Amino acid sequence: MNRYRRSLQVCSTWVVLLFAASHAAAFDALPDLPPAPTDNPVTADKVALGKQLYFDPRLSIDGTVSCNSCHNVMSGGTDSRPTSVGVNGQRGGRNAPTVWNAAYLTAQFWDGRAATLEDQAKGPPLNPIEMGMPSAAAVVERLNAIPGYVEQFKHVFGGDNAVSYDNMAKAIATYERTLITLNSPFDRHLKGDKSALSAAQKRGMKLFADTGCTGCHNGANFAGPTTLPVGQGFYQKFPTYPSDYDKKYGLSEDKGRYESTKNSDDMNMWRVPSLRNVALTAPYFHNGSVKTLSQAVRVMAKVQLNKTLQDEQVDDIVAFLNSLVGEFPVQSLPRLPETPNGSLVGAIK
Amino acid sequence: MNRYRRSLQVCSTWVVLLFAASHAAAFDALPDLPPAPTDNPVTADKVALGKQLYFDPRLSIDGTVSCNSCHNVMSGGTDSRPTSVGVNGQRGGRNAPTVWNAAYLTAQFWDGRAATLEDQAKGPPLNPIEMGMPSAAAVVERLNAIPGYVEQFKHVFGGDNAVSYDNMAKAIATYERTLITLNSPFDRHLKGDKSALSAAQKRGMKLFADTGCTGCHNGANFAGPTTLPVGQGFYQKFPTYPSDYDKKYGLSEDKGRYESTKNSDDMNMWRVPSLRNVALTAPYFHNGSVKTLSQAVRVMAKVQLNKTLQDEQVDDIVAFLNSLVGEFPVQSLPRLPETPNGSLVGAIK
Repeated sequence: MNRYRRSLQVCSTWVVLLFAASHAAAFDALPDLPPAPTDNPVTADKVALGKQLYFDPRLSIDGTVSCNSCHNVMSGGTDSRPTSVGVNGQRGGRNAPTVWNAAYLTAQFWDGRAATLEDQAKGPPLNPIEMGMPSAAAVVERLNAIPGYVEQFKHVFGGDNAVSYDNMAKAIATYERTLITLNSPFDRHLKGDKSALSAAQKRGMKLFADTGCTGCHNGANFAGPTTLPVGQGFYQKFPTYPSDYDKKYGLSEDKGRYESTKNSDDMNMWRVPSLRNVALTAPYFHNGSVKTLSQAVRVMAKVQLNKTLQDEQVDDIVAFLNSLVGEFPVQSLPRLPETPNGSLVGAIK
Repeated sequence: MNRYRRSLQVCSTWVVLLFAASHAAAFDALPDLPPAPTDNPVTADKVALGKQLYFDPRLSIDGTVSCNSCHNVMSGGTDSRPTSVGVNGQRGGRNAPTVWNAAYLTAQFWDGRAATLEDQAKGPPLNPIEMGMPSAAAVVERLNAIPGYVEQFKHVFGGDNAVSYDNMAKAIATYERTLITLNSPFDRHLKGDKSALSAAQKRGMKLFADTGCTGCHNGANFAGPTTLPVGQGFYQKFPTYPSDYDKKYGLSEDKGRYESTKNSDDMNMWRVPSLRNVALTAPYFHNGSVKTLSQAVRVMAKVQLNKTLQDEQVDDIVAFLNSLVGEFPVQSLPRLPETPNGSLVGAIK
């Protein structure tokens, strides 16, 4: 991690130039399967369990918030809001990242503080302004009170402690590894379909590389190398160049990775987000301050590359980014296991 | 309506006795199809559109609440809470009724103030503590900003004003007419399957009739006659008999149908709710004050029939009520139409 992080921090411009030279043409199609940890292989039954958990609002203290509330797989994998709303109407501080293709990232959360999908999934249930459960033990107690979950956990994980917070996270992560969008126009183009991209999208693809966007948004997921070791995030300072946008959109207010590490090297450092399906994940940036993709492109060129794009250039890049919208797999609606004759959540008033 | 309402109000005990005599054995299986208005026939495309709308949180002002948030079709069709949570963390005043088999009811809402599913669907989006949209026009404006909806509304409804609040409600109601649970153990029993019910369930079925529960909970939906004209609700005063339960659970605080009609005859009158899937819709009553089905049975016997049930009797009736859980149809997860490059909902902070 150090090699990447330090180089990005100390001389981000250098790195941009370096990547622009070496990776400008290095576009990759999304692999058909994302990686999975050896201790958590993907199985159909685990996916089915994880999907139920993902959609289950009983993982929140008052039964109102599920994973899907903020990372809606019926749409672009986000909640379309600047920042999310958790239990008791509380507002989160950062824009919900899309769950689609998160399985290809080498670190999770905007600040990369979770190494894996498994680690990530353990965060929101216990976050007081997200799902608000008081402890992992309280979550496990609730799962143990739902016979359909107990049965599935035993079947999927086996052993005496099948129903555990870690196994809950493993199941959710496994479901998330199925949330991938293959076969976008861009991918079809890379595989030889000459009609997959429009003329504007092709111009945008070239502009995207020539402008230097590929300096960070490279690799199959447009989020940096997918070959980094698990947990080694690909970070960048944001904003890098000063501009009026900084104040206008409050871009520097959140100190990014520094907030979790308290290491001054991490000040305003962020994990480079994927651009897959970015057309469907407005509003933009870690604080959701920018409402449209065209403005996001304009701001990025200025604050990361110190370039001012013309409107036509912005339009072409936006057209290209729309070619990164993949195909969303057809899924069945899960049925959540019941607790007959009583409810686990909520109190009067 | 008058005949039913007046008789129920003026001499509810009489009616209970009358129904107990004439309907005690009149159990009906759920019809395979619920009724639909002649001006809103069920079509596959309309169901598909209505399903998307039902799951779409963009029908709420801040993009956090969909129909499904409170009437969760992944479970018992409710939110498992005493009262629901709407936009900005606001609490509603009544327990969310289940959407499952609502299509068989002759009037909607706890107080029957909506005649049809179509009428009902127009309520929550504009309710300030539910979905909080400022006006029907604001909802239509949002629908018109979503190309995938405009296309489907035109296809399904045709005409120049295809995208309308009324048509939105028609589509949602049409989807809801598919939310029925056939083939419960009870229904299978009625159709001749001698092994469908356990011994306890059979005892409970007899007790349910002998106690007088069938006085109101009769008909295929256990919510009164399904043959009443559309809009003619089947009402009952609740609580009817005084008891300590009234104060303990605040049963009389909400004045029921009176709150919407301001007619003193409607004081504490409520539409008789269905008992289909009641085992999956805890907590119970209009205010969600009772946590378990066994306690709900105990309270109902006392406050509606002035009877005190023994624990064994309660257990048997609960067993019988569990036989009313039907089969939930397998559904696909909808994909919500997108607004590429921008979001329709939410503002910073």
